[in-house]
Amino acid sequence: MKGYAMLGIGKTGWIEKEEPICGPLDAICRPIAVAPCTSDVHTVWEGAIGDRSDMILGHEAVGEVVEVGSLVKDFKPGDKVVIPAITPDWNSIEAQDGYPMHSGGMLGGWKFSNIKDGVFGEFFNVNDADGNLSLLPDGLDPAAACMLSDMVPTGFHGSELAQVEYGDTVCVIGIGPVGLMGVAGAALKGASYLYAVGSRPDCARVAMEYGATEIINYKNGDIVEQIMEKTNGKGVDKVITAGGGVDVIGTAVKMLKPGGRVGNINYFGGEDYIMIPRAEWGVGMGHKYIVGGLMPAGRLRMQKLASLLVTGRLDTSKLLTHRFEGFDKIEEALMLMKDKPSNLIKPVVTIKW
Amino acid sequence: MKGYAMLGIGKTGWIEKEEPICGPLDAICRPIAVAPCTSDVHTVWEGAIGDRSDMILGHEAVGEVVEVGSLVKDFKPGDKVVIPAITPDWNSIEAQDGYPMHSGGMLGGWKFSNIKDGVFGEFFNVNDADGNLSLLPDGLDPAAACMLSDMVPTGFHGSELAQVEYGDTVCVIGIGPVGLMGVAGAALKGASYLYAVGSRPDCARVAMEYGATEIINYKNGDIVEQIMEKTNGKGVDKVITAGGGVDVIGTAVKMLKPGGRVGNINYFGGEDYIMIPRAEWGVGMGHKYIVGGLMPAGRLRMQKLASLLVTGRLDTSKLLTHRFEGFDKIEEALMLMKDKPSNLIKPVVTIKW
Amino acid sequence: MKGYAMLGIGKTGWIEKEEPICGPLDAICRPIAVAPCTSDVHTVWEGAIGDRSDMILGHEAVGEVVEVGSLVKDFKPGDKVVIPAITPDWNSIEAQDGYPMHSGGMLGGWKFSNIKDGVFGEFFNVNDADGNLSLLPDGLDPAAACMLSDMVPTGFHGSELAQVEYGDTVCVIGIGPVGLMGVAGAALKGASYLYAVGSRPDCARVAMEYGATEIINYKNGDIVEQIMEKTNGKGVDKVITAGGGVDVIGTAVKMLKPGGRVGNINYFGGEDYIMIPRAEWGVGMGHKYIVGGLMPAGRLRMQKLASLLVTGRLDTSKLLTHRFEGFDKIEEALMLMKDKPSNLIKPVVTIKW
Amino acid sequence: MKGYAMLGIGKTGWIEKEEPICGPLDAICRPIAVAPCTSDVHTVWEGAIGDRSDMILGHEAVGEVVEVGSLVKDFKPGDKVVIPAITPDWNSIEAQDGYPMHSGGMLGGWKFSNIKDGVFGEFFNVNDADGNLSLLPDGLDPAAACMLSDMVPTGFHGSELAQVEYGDTVCVIGIGPVGLMGVAGAALKGASYLYAVGSRPDCARVAMEYGATEIINYKNGDIVEQIMEKTNGKGVDKVITAGGGVDVIGTAVKMLKPGGRVGNINYFGGEDYIMIPRAEWGVGMGHKYIVGGLMPAGRLRMQKLASLLVTGRLDTSKLLTHRFEGFDKIEEALMLMKDKPSNLIKPVVTIKW
Repeated sequence: MKGYAMLGIGKTGWIEKEEPICGPLDAICRPIAVAPCTSDVHTVWEGAIGDRSDMILGHEAVGEVVEVGSLVKDFKPGDKVVIPAITPDWNSIEAQDGYPMHSGGMLGGWKFSNIKDGVFGEFFNVNDADGNLSLLPDGLDPAAACMLSDMVPTGFHGSELAQVEYGDTVCVIGIGPVGLMGVAGAALKGASYLYAVGSRPDCARVAMEYGATEIINYKNGDIVEQIMEKTNGKGVDKVITAGGGVDVIGTAVKMLKPGGRVGNINYFGGEDYIMIPRAEWGVGMGHKYIVGGLMPAGRLRMQKLASLLVTGRLDTSKLLTHRFEGFDKIEEALMLMKDKPSNLIKPVVTIKW
Repeated sequence: MKGYAMLGIGKTGWIEKEEPICGPLDAICRPIAVAPCTSDVHTVWEGAIGDRSDMILGHEAVGEVVEVGSLVKDFKPGDKVVIPAITPDWNSIEAQDGYPMHSGGMLGGWKFSNIKDGVFGEFFNVNDADGNLSLLPDGLDPAAACMLSDMVPTGFHGSELAQVEYGDTVCVIGIGPVGLMGVAGAALKGASYLYAVGSRPDCARVAMEYGATEIINYKNGDIVEQIMEKTNGKGVDKVITAGGGVDVIGTAVKMLKPGGRVGNINYFGGEDYIMIPRAEWGVGMGHKYIVGGLMPAGRLRMQKLASLLVTGRLDTSKLLTHRFEGFDKIEEALMLMKDKPSNLIKPVVTIKW
Repeated sequence: MKGYAMLGIGKTGWIEKEEPICGPLDAICRPIAVAPCTSDVHTVWEGAIGDRSDMILGHEAVGEVVEVGSLVKDFKPGDKVVIPAITPDWNSIEAQDGYPMHSGGMLGGWKFSNIKDGVFGEFFNVNDADGNLSLLPDGLDPAAACMLSDMVPTGFHGSELAQVEYGDTVCVIGIGPVGLMGVAGAALKGASYLYAVGSRPDCARVAMEYGATEIINYKNGDIVEQIMEKTNGKGVDKVITAGGGVDVIGTAVKMLKPGGRVGNINYFGGEDYIMIPRAEWGVGMGHKYIVGGLMPAGRLRMQKLASLLVTGRLDTSKLLTHRFEGFDKIEEALMLMKDKPSNLIKPVVTIKW
Repeated sequence: MKGYAMLGIGKTGWIEKEEPICGPLDAICRPIAVAPCTSDVHTVWEGAIGDRSDMILGHEAVGEVVEVGSLVKDFKPGDKVVIPAITPDWNSIEAQDGYPMHSGGMLGGWKFSNIKDGVFGEFFNVNDADGNLSLLPDGLDPAAACMLSDMVPTGFHGSELAQVEYGDTVCVIGIGPVGLMGVAGAALKGASYLYAVGSRPDCARVAMEYGATEIINYKNGDIVEQIMEKTNGKGVDKVITAGGGVDVIGTAVKMLKPGGRVGNINYFGGEDYIMIPRAEWGVGMGHKYIVGGLMPAGRLRMQKLASLLVTGRLDTSKLLTHRFEGFDKIEEALMLMKDKPSNLIKPVVTIKW
């Protein structure tokens, strides 16, 4: 079969590969909508997870089941399904402990385009089909639903980590597609004032549509100062960090009230240390919670988030600035993600077989 | 001064009374918007809290500060303020334990029109002004803001008690003004499917505007059966009970998934027992949480909820089906609440001095 | 193979049966220590779960693995293991939702001696071996470790459900073996005053050894009154109900402070309704949480609880009032459990093959 | 009156000062047991909170009430009381938000020997007596109870912040008096394996008595490596940091499992940044929670912790290696704390008037 792969650090291309094998608990799917992710860019051009050769890329997909293993009970060939980017081993110790995304070890639930071939192939394997697939609800656009794989669960996890509550004043730093879902997620969890930090006009406009009450542009000055001014020196209740380098955590701590929480949904690729400013962290005693976490995934998570689309609570189509048609357009979509033109939020490729 | 009072069980009328005295921590306020509550009706015509004579009624108000005690730091005469229905003693053991509404004993934070005169007087006393008042944000309609005293915090507490999460399927039983705020609160906390149980067309219409996805009318059959059918026999994740008699808790348990939660925001006036069906409660082992609680109140709560109005997340004006102007209209508004015409959701009285 | 079975309601006996089959994810074990449970008595002599014929009884066991399925990674024949009474399907929706014990439906994780043969056979099947077995730590007495299957996780779940915190005043109602583990669990979670309600002297003595600070005997008067007197009319912070009929929940609510929690670990076999006293439940607004739940189980749970035995935090051997040796003594042990002599806490049978 | 004061950075001495004035909500107390704290040493000899002149030191005390304000309801002259080191303003926004220790601003609940005179005077003022004092239970040794002011609530807060659960493997870094209470608190919340990091033999011995299962001595090698070896490379569930400089947080993160939590109870005096190792923090996505917080205080907290002493769950007398008698011995006790001889854990001074 054909797949679009990382050939080595800095190199990608189409390759031929054996079709994946379906274990007793697995499903084999064909992609019907896929989206490249900034993580794919990090993986290939920054070598963020180390070298890989001939590894098929991609981890955001809606697909059709073509084969299921002998122990799979709830899915059958022909089912249209949402596939999460993270596919945990549900009986692992870590899943039992409430952290399925770390099954088998830290970040161990991340398998696609990391430790096995991703979704940019004609076929791909999904481990634990019953635990990780969910049916695509009738009437949902596969392209819009494809945002359920990663953008929505990651963005919404920001508010879960930060524990946004009714009336909280929240700052979301970064308004790429994940940050925009961070904004939408905070609004949908009861934030009142919602400051979105970013500079690209198209993203800023969509951030306002998703519920931001004001855009903070770093070009207008230090963002901590801007936030402190807007909050009368009080700071915000919660910060979601969805962009920036490792410095963003320190920035978040500085703009936070005592008892506040930083929910990080960034993948930090560089630097050895994340630096927390001692004084603003309350000399160790300010009850400013700092945590970051990989998205929760699996079947239930996909179902619950999909139901937000079905009931009209969330409209992911606003993210889809660039739509492509056809399996062979995956390369073009990925290159767009790499080049990040200013009007790009998220490209998506739909595929008819 | 003049006030509209409960004269005894079943009797109300205008009375003359001494002006309230301002203790060192207190404020004296004049009402500028007040609303009668079903609780006032229970208090007078059902004797729900026992007999009272010449007790001024009312616990929902926006007002103007006219005097503050010597230890009050943050408010001064002339300030326009939101006054919560519940005014805790913040240094009590119970408040330190996270339950300020039970300060000094169960439901002990409920003082207005219960253990002291309420807000339907020319003046009223607010205990612990710094802890319980909050400034009326500029530009907010006092009538709409008056819903912050009780309707919003009580309705929203349903979703807090039931712990509504992203994508939850929720049922709100009862769509009077508190139930409608229960609906709005569930939507604003991330519910997907949101079934609202009620029969009055005007309330049903507003429930849909506040985020219900479907109205369940008990006139169309048993509501548990209707819910089970709509959820393919699975039941809902959470139930908010905001209407009905004591039977509503059993009804809620029956429609709930294992691990689900009932958040009750009803005041139950009659019957000796609330009956939980043993089998549907999982023979004691189904992890179906049952809890009900008086609204959280105080200054921070009022500020946070008011910020939801300021930022446009919530529009309480949809509740206000009947508006009156003038202190002397309080009686008419209360009688309307008592008679509950089918087009009534909530009456409000605004007052110019 | 041979097994001790329920032949029908009210009847038990030794039967011959086919050896269990090992699926790809399963393990087959031989028992090396087993204990009968009051649930076995309910099942047989009260027909609590309906009729069953030739179903092998028992769900508390330490065993030795004799066979594993092709997909099992972490266990091999010869391993000594602790087997939990509840063996969830870990990839189910319910497990993903945090309630593995309800996998596949309410109480669905309860398989042994309910929907499949139990552990009183020469061999028994354990579903999802990697998810549900845990290694017996070196040096632990299998008889003492056998209490990890059900008594410890069920008893300790009381304090988890009731959310016992440092310095809480706690009442545990019922001091059979589960209640005694309820007492130990509350002490081990930071309770200060710990009232244990019961009347049997041997149980009372052991309750004090496990951390009770005082025994409340219902023979000395109404237990609510006794508790209220001891707490100066305040009531307790938390109640764990581990005995009694459905009335125990109402009793618990009456002795509870506002904001308190009842954690029920009883299986209620009879009556249609559990009755909550309206007034003492704060007329629906007292924030008195009521919840009951089947024990959390699985590999991690077994490991964590076993580590409490290894480190000497908990000594389950005090429960073992009657020890038997030999597979054929299972009948005698079960009959003892049925007859409940006053000096019985828990019988256990150890088996050498 | 007389008091032992900080005269300036690096200088202390006895001074004469006006007796404190009793506001309407306040109490004036005489000390009957006081203890110097490492914080006093930081304050004076490291200038940790900036310069102060003639500020009476000390914040750990049991005392006798000599005067109460007109609004105080629950205390009267002659009452023996425990006084917490932190005395919040209970009606503040921050207290309403669950963080009373930050009332009025970060760390704002810390008043004694910071923004007002401490307890090393013949008399001292306690703000909000009803909210902050608690009666000394009959029969408790004032010297032992004096550990309730700071050592116990601070040490126990470690396990609260880290959310220690049944069977958790926990590491406590630092075994001075606060760290020892961290050890005791972890054991009392259900930790199984409990590694205590320290090197002083007397502290190590007491750590074992308080429930440590093993002492990790940094003199035997890198403590992260030692912990990883003991946990088979898995790391621990929770870390409590109760000693060391800012580097201790990074150390904690390195030895932590994904989903684990660091609860810091250190006051960090120096360095600009706390450095979190990016890779071991899961590149931002490992769900390793980092938080530190000032002790919760107030009347309820004191009551609950005192009840642990009364019921024999905790014996603070093991901390008291050096006992003094007489007000004039305060200086000697403080100097001992400054010099930290190897056999010192905590000095205490009892006073008869």
